Amino acid sequence: MEIDRNGLEVLGREECTRLLAASPVGRLALHVRALPTILPVNHLVTPWGIVIRTRPGTKLDAAVMNAVVAFEVDRFDSLTHTGWSVVVTGVASELTDPQALEHVRRLPLPHWAPGDADHYVVISLELIDGRRIVHTPEAHPVDAVS
Amino acid sequence: MEIDRNGLEVLGREECTRLLAASPVGRLALHVRALPTILPVNHLVTPWGIVIRTRPGTKLDAAVMNAVVAFEVDRFDSLTHTGWSVVVTGVASELTDPQALEHVRRLPLPHWAPGDADHYVVISLELIDGRRIVHTPEAHPVDAVS
Repeated sequence: MEIDRNGLEVLGREECTRLLAASPVGRLALHVRALPTILPVNHLVTPWGIVIRTRPGTKLDAAVMNAVVAFEVDRFDSLTHTGWSVVVTGVASELTDPQALEHVRRLPLPHWAPGDADHYVVISLELIDGRRIVHTPEAHPVDAVS
Repeated sequence: MEIDRNGLEVLGREECTRLLAASPVGRLALHVRALPTILPVNHLVTPWGIVIRTRPGTKLDAAVMNAVVAFEVDRFDSLTHTGWSVVVTGVASELTDPQALEHVRRLPLPHWAPGDADHYVVISLELIDGRRIVHTPEAHPVDAVS
């Protein structure tokens, strides 16, 4: 098990991808009107990267397109004070490849919020980083994740 | 109930603050080495703003100090496809006011990850934005939050 200098377990790429795929909601960090914000979005893990849906003309659509964004999933347990998080950092771009679009349209990308959405944005999976809080006998739970 | 143009309920400031206080883990959007990332952190809601702890000299400590950051809490239900999120956008600064430090040190700021942390960072609560997914009979759940 690899432990980083903050005492957190470093998750391997395969486990990060599995956790990304198993999470129905992720969080997208981006800038809207020059200010940073975080938006929860439904997503899918595909061979082309993380795919989300937007509506053309929305603030999200304008902000995310061709921007470098961070996308995060996590789960934490209030009782045991354990948990993990996975962050993808990459360029978001419109999914235009016909084969990819045909593939993605057949996938069960969930749609929790109301409204239509027929614009697909893909975030490349080149930079993935995952951490898990582990409580070993010698590790004292003292700090926030830093 | 105020509904935004994406069909989401707009939460009032009081409810946003309550939800922020009731969430043990939040997510901080910031830049590390010029790339956006999202870090889960424990936090407290105080009269001075959102307070998190860091360790001097860490990447988080350097990245967050005097930067404009976004801080988010949310909860979503996979069964009902409902949920809410609250985002605070503000300047993060070191908490140095002696009275504030004395107050904060007595509060039960949780410490889930291992390691020491004696640096307090405060994010002002000027910009708070909260949304809730509501499924009304005329609203069809079709879209990701956008």
